[in-house]
Amino acid sequence: MRLTTMSDYAMRLLMYVGQHPERLCTISEVANAYDISESHLMKITHQLGLAGWLETVRGKGGGMRLAAAPAEINLGAVVRSIESDFFLVDCLASDTGCLLTGNCQLTSIISGALQNFMQYLDRYTLADLLAPSAEGASRLGPVAQPLTFHKRPSVMAS
Amino acid sequence: MRLTTMSDYAMRLLMYVGQHPERLCTISEVANAYDISESHLMKITHQLGLAGWLETVRGKGGGMRLAAAPAEINLGAVVRSIESDFFLVDCLASDTGCLLTGNCQLTSIISGALQNFMQYLDRYTLADLLAPSAEGASRLGPVAQPLTFHKRPSVMAS
Repeated sequence: MRLTTMSDYAMRLLMYVGQHPERLCTISEVANAYDISESHLMKITHQLGLAGWLETVRGKGGGMRLAAAPAEINLGAVVRSIESDFFLVDCLASDTGCLLTGNCQLTSIISGALQNFMQYLDRYTLADLLAPSAEGASRLGPVAQPLTFHKRPSVMAS
Repeated sequence: MRLTTMSDYAMRLLMYVGQHPERLCTISEVANAYDISESHLMKITHQLGLAGWLETVRGKGGGMRLAAAPAEINLGAVVRSIESDFFLVDCLASDTGCLLTGNCQLTSIISGALQNFMQYLDRYTLADLLAPSAEGASRLGPVAQPLTFHKRPSVMAS
């Protein structure tokens, strides 16, 4: 399971720009910093501008800066503004004529899990990404450690 | 954001087999029922067999059946047994030489969100998928409705 590359890049782009509040940043320097595609970043910059997280200055010496304070840029909202495809299973996307329709809880259970995922992101802002040891972290308690997944878990009783 | 096709198919395959406890099911009938790839289902069947959720009977008249009671097949455990790639952002996957390393909370926040996602799935079993109105649903309360995401959310204060 993955966030799309677009959301990943969007958060990293905002982090980079947020770490240089004193000047305009360019797409090419962000692309170089993370070694990622400039054309993807152009699309993301446009999208983040539309959503009100970034403002861009055109022309020579131009670039982008945050359009809001880091503490006002909510991570859940950023992901929602970027992800065009939140359908986690095929049957959420369209009427597939599935034989189980009407007798299937899969879509609602997966939607509930996704809701939990997004509610967690909703608790954080760009300020938390920029300043790990600052008020965000202490306010919310320790952040989770990266998960380790095992390929063959034991059966869990319900 | 998506579950991989493999996890999606795995859950639907288990649902189908669980709905026919009186007989062996074949890969081709599951492929037909959902209009999905038979070769993908072969891989998944193998994987679910290794993980202990399915048992297969070879030869003419062969097929597969559940290897455990539906209430003992936990959905979180099924997804963990299928998903080979739980890295939600590039920097979780490897040392990318990212300039922000050591000053970045992105990976731990995303991991926490994923943990919330999986904890929700851990509350359900195949029995909940098979019998929407049965004890699973009432025990856990109403399941969430599919989410609607808007492309341009308003800025949320932290």
